[in-house]
Amino acid sequence: MRLAELSERSGVTTATIKYYLREGLLPPGERISATQAEYGEEHLRRLRLVRALVQVGRIPVATAREVLTAIDDDRTDQLTRIGTAVAALPQPAPPRRRDETVVTAEALAGELQRRLGWRIVVNNPAHQALVTALAALLRLGYPCAVEQLLPYGTAADGLAAHEIALIGEFASPTTQLEAAVALTVLYEPVLLSLRRLAQAEAATRQLRDPS
Amino acid sequence: MRLAELSERSGVTTATIKYYLREGLLPPGERISATQAEYGEEHLRRLRLVRALVQVGRIPVATAREVLTAIDDDRTDQLTRIGTAVAALPQPAPPRRRDETVVTAEALAGELQRRLGWRIVVNNPAHQALVTALAALLRLGYPCAVEQLLPYGTAADGLAAHEIALIGEFASPTTQLEAAVALTVLYEPVLLSLRRLAQAEAATRQLRDPS
Repeated sequence: MRLAELSERSGVTTATIKYYLREGLLPPGERISATQAEYGEEHLRRLRLVRALVQVGRIPVATAREVLTAIDDDRTDQLTRIGTAVAALPQPAPPRRRDETVVTAEALAGELQRRLGWRIVVNNPAHQALVTALAALLRLGYPCAVEQLLPYGTAADGLAAHEIALIGEFASPTTQLEAAVALTVLYEPVLLSLRRLAQAEAATRQLRDPS
Repeated sequence: MRLAELSERSGVTTATIKYYLREGLLPPGERISATQAEYGEEHLRRLRLVRALVQVGRIPVATAREVLTAIDDDRTDQLTRIGTAVAALPQPAPPRRRDETVVTAEALAGELQRRLGWRIVVNNPAHQALVTALAALLRLGYPCAVEQLLPYGTAADGLAAHEIALIGEFASPTTQLEAAVALTVLYEPVLLSLRRLAQAEAATRQLRDPS
């Protein structure tokens, strides 16, 4: 298809598509003349992922490029590619200095993951984000014992099993990788808004009918 | 206690405490002379909540003031106060225009909550945030059938029950309200980072030992 059709089918303006092409977020089409190029279904699919990252996830273009480069890096296996792509997504910054609270938070994060039966990968940015979040709870004196954290881990475990099955329904390794990245970004607001709605529902039940 | 002690015990500089006092995030202390005021444990507790909102949640000062005003509004019952306070927390913007996709997303959000047995409160900002998130999934053509969304709702339901119990351990209605707001903000990054770690764990298991 030509640029105009790619624009119409994707709902992305031709100016934005050209910008994504220049920024390397979209692979170039096949040149068919000095001024025209032909695009395929893979461009449409990739455009969908770019919009998930940039427009919905509000991820900076440079970061999105990093994520896409990881997806396309065929020198590595599927597991490394998915790990690198998801790790390149924006995360809260790790703690600035490793004070006593951070050391306690690291121990807590390790204990929690052991209890859940997970491998501990300290250089996973999500591990660092967890340590930062736990250090904030500890520093402010809010409850965060392992027993109080376990329900969050168990919930995440259940969702991950569901998500792996969902991703497995995509046809090829590349589309699976793209879906894994897109769904990580797109389902975060789903999960957070449902958490708030569930809290409102539980609070309403509790206060109207305390038992 | 005097300002210096409040600063030492809270770890917040006196300059920042004075700023919070000026901005109305902290109630004034009891004047004991022209230049000195006395602060109590409730100031220490409130300071902890302000830091959770402003420093950890990166919530604008004006928004934090709105949240605190809702907590302190003793003309309304506990349920209204908690609802107003949590609703004042920053949420993704609602959809800009109500096109066909938004209408489909609204129906989907309604059906999901009905299946979960929740009351549907369309003016809850979290409901609007859910509609926005589902509209993005629909628009980009990623999977979001009710069956695929239910596990997120069920997980949120389980966490809400846990959170209500956790908050119930705080002594007074006011401390419970404060804890509800603080924990909503502070546990979001815990949940999101655990989700990414659970995904990494599930992907590692799946790809090393496909079954």
